[in-house]
Amino acid sequence: MNTRKKTKKVKVGNLEIGGGSPITVQSMTKTDTSDIDTTVKQIHALEKAGCQIVRCAVPDKAAAEALKEIKKQINIPLVADIHFNHMYAVMAAEAGVDKLRINPGNLGDPDKIKAVVDAAKDHQIPIRVGVNSGSLEPKIKQKFHGHVTAEGLVKSALNNIHILEKLNFTDIVVSIKATSVPMTISAYQMIAKKINYPLHVGITEAGIPRVGSIRSAAGLGAILSQGIGDTIRVSLTSDPLEEIRVGYEILKALQLVYHGVTVISCPTCGRSDIDVIKIATEIEERTKNIKQPLTIAIMGCEVNGPGEAADADVGLAGGRGVGLIFREGQVVRKVPEAEMIEALMDEIESLAIN
Amino acid sequence: MNTRKKTKKVKVGNLEIGGGSPITVQSMTKTDTSDIDTTVKQIHALEKAGCQIVRCAVPDKAAAEALKEIKKQINIPLVADIHFNHMYAVMAAEAGVDKLRINPGNLGDPDKIKAVVDAAKDHQIPIRVGVNSGSLEPKIKQKFHGHVTAEGLVKSALNNIHILEKLNFTDIVVSIKATSVPMTISAYQMIAKKINYPLHVGITEAGIPRVGSIRSAAGLGAILSQGIGDTIRVSLTSDPLEEIRVGYEILKALQLVYHGVTVISCPTCGRSDIDVIKIATEIEERTKNIKQPLTIAIMGCEVNGPGEAADADVGLAGGRGVGLIFREGQVVRKVPEAEMIEALMDEIESLAIN
Repeated sequence: MNTRKKTKKVKVGNLEIGGGSPITVQSMTKTDTSDIDTTVKQIHALEKAGCQIVRCAVPDKAAAEALKEIKKQINIPLVADIHFNHMYAVMAAEAGVDKLRINPGNLGDPDKIKAVVDAAKDHQIPIRVGVNSGSLEPKIKQKFHGHVTAEGLVKSALNNIHILEKLNFTDIVVSIKATSVPMTISAYQMIAKKINYPLHVGITEAGIPRVGSIRSAAGLGAILSQGIGDTIRVSLTSDPLEEIRVGYEILKALQLVYHGVTVISCPTCGRSDIDVIKIATEIEERTKNIKQPLTIAIMGCEVNGPGEAADADVGLAGGRGVGLIFREGQVVRKVPEAEMIEALMDEIESLAIN
Repeated sequence: MNTRKKTKKVKVGNLEIGGGSPITVQSMTKTDTSDIDTTVKQIHALEKAGCQIVRCAVPDKAAAEALKEIKKQINIPLVADIHFNHMYAVMAAEAGVDKLRINPGNLGDPDKIKAVVDAAKDHQIPIRVGVNSGSLEPKIKQKFHGHVTAEGLVKSALNNIHILEKLNFTDIVVSIKATSVPMTISAYQMIAKKINYPLHVGITEAGIPRVGSIRSAAGLGAILSQGIGDTIRVSLTSDPLEEIRVGYEILKALQLVYHGVTVISCPTCGRSDIDVIKIATEIEERTKNIKQPLTIAIMGCEVNGPGEAADADVGLAGGRGVGLIFREGQVVRKVPEAEMIEALMDEIESLAIN
């Protein structure tokens, strides 16, 4: 694991992105933004799930007009996602959103770009330049023989950044997402060497959760483990709450956040004679609301069992119909299989309330 | 993405690991190995799911005695996993298994280790040295203040390798798995610099699939994208078929294998007015048995939609109640929402049979 690259610190509402701040987890609403009640309800659900920054698409005037009321009713920073029409971006800034996601290059002539940048300056909000493989400028694609490439994505981002910098605007966050995981990894590696702005990282359009969570984890695992990335969004074709859960699981796996229970459990093999799948599944379910970082090991045999169980906060090392329960490295009980789950829960709950 | 590190090529049955061979996907049976029928049935299911190498635990004499018959009834290389008792390893080699997984250091005195190595030489099978955080030697742990560390895991692997090399045995595969994802990443980075033997990579005891698939993908994504790793095993507390599915999804995401359909689908947002979740989920389900590598893009709006749809083999870019169907970059049809799934399937099936 590389140490995290030090980027510029950018304020988004009451949060900070970059400059060594904790990596934040974002999502995007999937409602019609102009339907204020439904959108606010989804944002409240996202807040409860741990979403730290939320983005809404602003594809029309009604959506832009809804932002002020949405902002009033929610508790986390709000980002307006705008393409093509610069007036919606100006309206969003005036409505009090906390960040704009635009690609200056697709807003039209320089006057329009300047109007958006002036609005962002007036309201002291940052702009995310968000390049995406699905909307790379045709003239850049042509340069690379008609293909979307990591180099092309980086070039597009640098062009957009340059437009903002020429207007003396440097309150910038950058993303360069591709559907191809290797292309996304390469693009972030390249841009991290070229700029110091904080990076918003994700695999775009990763798919339905069963597959998209794996694609996202593989890509973000590669990028974040290299010290690259300041805020993440997992893009799944699903309820946005699933994006938050997967985002935190990725950060927890990489030990970039510490919260909640991590259940380590053996895959079971010919050595195991306790039902590890049943015990691990039930413990995972019964501990999902614990916020405190705890590691629980559920192990079926004597090969790795005692070692992992002793290393965890609470552990079970199964044997011939009986299991040793460990707590903070010490064996505290020996129980038959029927009592294993309750014995583990007793120890977990006693640690979780301390 | 780094280019793959060139390692020594090792033969495992009719397959090769390392030296630029395609990365193989392994799993392990979760049955009692001595129950031949149940074990063979599970291996046949694994073969059908694409498992390329299968491992069985050999914890007792009955398991060792079952290997010959199991080997006879299956079609993929068989690996015997042995701890502590060297005789089971000798029996496994004589039974015709294709690889041994042992840690020489835990087999006891030098005569016993030599007996196993002689058996491996006689039967021309390789040995995997498989170090695991749960069973790291106490004397190495002590060296690192009582903790399991990446350095300690690497030291254990090197010690075990050295024992084999001193006996002139170099037909070696190495793994060093930890439950901690960052520790596993660090350990593989370190060992890849020190040895040239092929590496078997995995996150040990990753947990139940919902979490374990994410932990495995984050870790393997980091390791494989650095060019490290010759064969993988995803360790999930679940049916082993799920380990195979997740293993292939990770390799597909990283474009290290090309097979089957990849559905790229947008997360949907306030811009989308077709039901992307429903369409993507159904297309994913209906294309899961296609072996040919095909990319299908299912996109809800005009921002990234046309770009991704045109870049895929078959694509849908949704708009106001209608969608454009793309095939190999060209718009081939314009259909109302009710006909989108069938129109996509028509194009997919016509490409899949060509």
